[in-house]
Amino acid sequence: MTPEPIRILVTGGTFDKEYNELTGTLFFHDTHIAEMLRLGRCLLDVEVRTLMMIDSLEMTDDDRRIIAEHCKSARESRIVITHGTDTMIETAGHLAREIQGKTIVLTGAMVPYKFGSSDGLFNLGSALAFVQTLAAGVYIAMNGRVFPWDRARKNRTQGIFESV
Amino acid sequence: MTPEPIRILVTGGTFDKEYNELTGTLFFHDTHIAEMLRLGRCLLDVEVRTLMMIDSLEMTDDDRRIIAEHCKSARESRIVITHGTDTMIETAGHLAREIQGKTIVLTGAMVPYKFGSSDGLFNLGSALAFVQTLAAGVYIAMNGRVFPWDRARKNRTQGIFESV
Amino acid sequence: MTPEPIRILVTGGTFDKEYNELTGTLFFHDTHIAEMLRLGRCLLDVEVRTLMMIDSLEMTDDDRRIIAEHCKSARESRIVITHGTDTMIETAGHLAREIQGKTIVLTGAMVPYKFGSSDGLFNLGSALAFVQTLAAGVYIAMNGRVFPWDRARKNRTQGIFESV
Amino acid sequence: MTPEPIRILVTGGTFDKEYNELTGTLFFHDTHIAEMLRLGRCLLDVEVRTLMMIDSLEMTDDDRRIIAEHCKSARESRIVITHGTDTMIETAGHLAREIQGKTIVLTGAMVPYKFGSSDGLFNLGSALAFVQTLAAGVYIAMNGRVFPWDRARKNRTQGIFESV
Repeated sequence: MTPEPIRILVTGGTFDKEYNELTGTLFFHDTHIAEMLRLGRCLLDVEVRTLMMIDSLEMTDDDRRIIAEHCKSARESRIVITHGTDTMIETAGHLAREIQGKTIVLTGAMVPYKFGSSDGLFNLGSALAFVQTLAAGVYIAMNGRVFPWDRARKNRTQGIFESV
Repeated sequence: MTPEPIRILVTGGTFDKEYNELTGTLFFHDTHIAEMLRLGRCLLDVEVRTLMMIDSLEMTDDDRRIIAEHCKSARESRIVITHGTDTMIETAGHLAREIQGKTIVLTGAMVPYKFGSSDGLFNLGSALAFVQTLAAGVYIAMNGRVFPWDRARKNRTQGIFESV
Repeated sequence: MTPEPIRILVTGGTFDKEYNELTGTLFFHDTHIAEMLRLGRCLLDVEVRTLMMIDSLEMTDDDRRIIAEHCKSARESRIVITHGTDTMIETAGHLAREIQGKTIVLTGAMVPYKFGSSDGLFNLGSALAFVQTLAAGVYIAMNGRVFPWDRARKNRTQGIFESV
Repeated sequence: MTPEPIRILVTGGTFDKEYNELTGTLFFHDTHIAEMLRLGRCLLDVEVRTLMMIDSLEMTDDDRRIIAEHCKSARESRIVITHGTDTMIETAGHLAREIQGKTIVLTGAMVPYKFGSSDGLFNLGSALAFVQTLAAGVYIAMNGRVFPWDRARKNRTQGIFESV
């Protein structure tokens, strides 16, 4: 079971939000994915690409086309995408219509990685495991669970993903 | 893809080591698995049982029989075992000889969860994902990778698991 | 040098901001001062009172009157006030005009305590030390330094306090 | 109240212990004082010197002579020493006999800085405040309190410092 190469596409989301101590607001600076992979002592053959650094509420159709292009052109057939949770399913649907023959797992976090109580490292660990073992398709990995993209919805009241 | 119930068997290991501030040494108190599952906002149907709280260098054949008994008698067919890394493969071999028809994933940590730089949350996330998706068998999940139990060894010089 | 009793008055500020994972915004819930004192293994004779839980930009003259009343009526003559940094000096000035014969130290944080990179614990440690050793008066303790209230200003560009 | 320059002398102690993930033991690598000062956004005029990196149970009379020499020759009259708690008072006594006219504050930690639950940042904040405000003499700063060196003892059962 030699691990196949995996591409990680970074789009921002809560995962990568930081605290601006001058303004007291949250903002995007750099992705923390490389640091998280080091923390997890990850030894997978992983290539990380930052495509954008945005809140998923601001993601446009153009942004989704860019993500789909990168999924298509990637030489890897196993892809993890870090993404804000608010429109994760919308992006997943777009990718499902555009991409065939690849295993794509979208994941995110409810709390920024840099804050003490983040679920990010747990989610990244699960997403990287799911992407190695699932058949081609587009999936959401959150809360330790995995959903085919068209079987999940975000429950905004509870901040969780659930089956539909 | 409604998640099947998962049993987590806790045996101790670096995962759960804490710092005794009176003696300056590391010791076992209670498992941190429940806290880690909360941090990961885990919504799987998980039942956690603490079997022992030991360094895996001190694990005896009797201990391994106890673990095997719990794997057999568990009503769940998907089981994650947290375990010290030093003899993880030995325990995995014992379970492979004793248990049929269940997916068992052993995982651990190189750094205690309570220390800032632990790989524990990443490993737990990946182990819970692998246990949901892999066929029956006994596996090691470390460093983002998964190994059939008889295809892994711990490289003690580098503190990683690798294929054999 | 038996430590005199100290009163800590909590008013909120960045110190106590938390991340709301449902809305992705920062908010106030409960103070973390008791938790921080435990973390510091603090053995001073300290009484903590939460007066309000607000961003100091929203602090009104009425709020400042409440703080001054509590400083006056406290049986302790040594008082630490946790406060947002934006109007910390304004509150300090108000207290200096109203209170005589007590040592009052205001402190705060640039980053919330719950975020990994907070200066809060360092500032609380220094404020509790300054309040034990300084003569009566109103002071600002930030960045390891202490300033008489009328000799400090917040440099908003750099997020630090400096002498005037 | 322009802050006077402060020298920090690092001798090791629990403060600076790290976890060796290959051996599962604690060891000394580099001091974390600079990182802690950054975290505290410390703007004092501080010069940090590492004299040794040892457990204070292993500190010899020669080591104490080295520390005393550095205290004497330092151009600063305000000195903080980070030190293991086990023999902190012994070193303080040695310095008290050797050094006149300087304010020297020894501090330490019960839990290593790199572990989540360390008191180190709190203690460093208080030590830096005490050293700025106390008269010449040798002091112990722990648990938010300060003791003249000959009025403190470590209560090993509880892991705290108390008055004698």
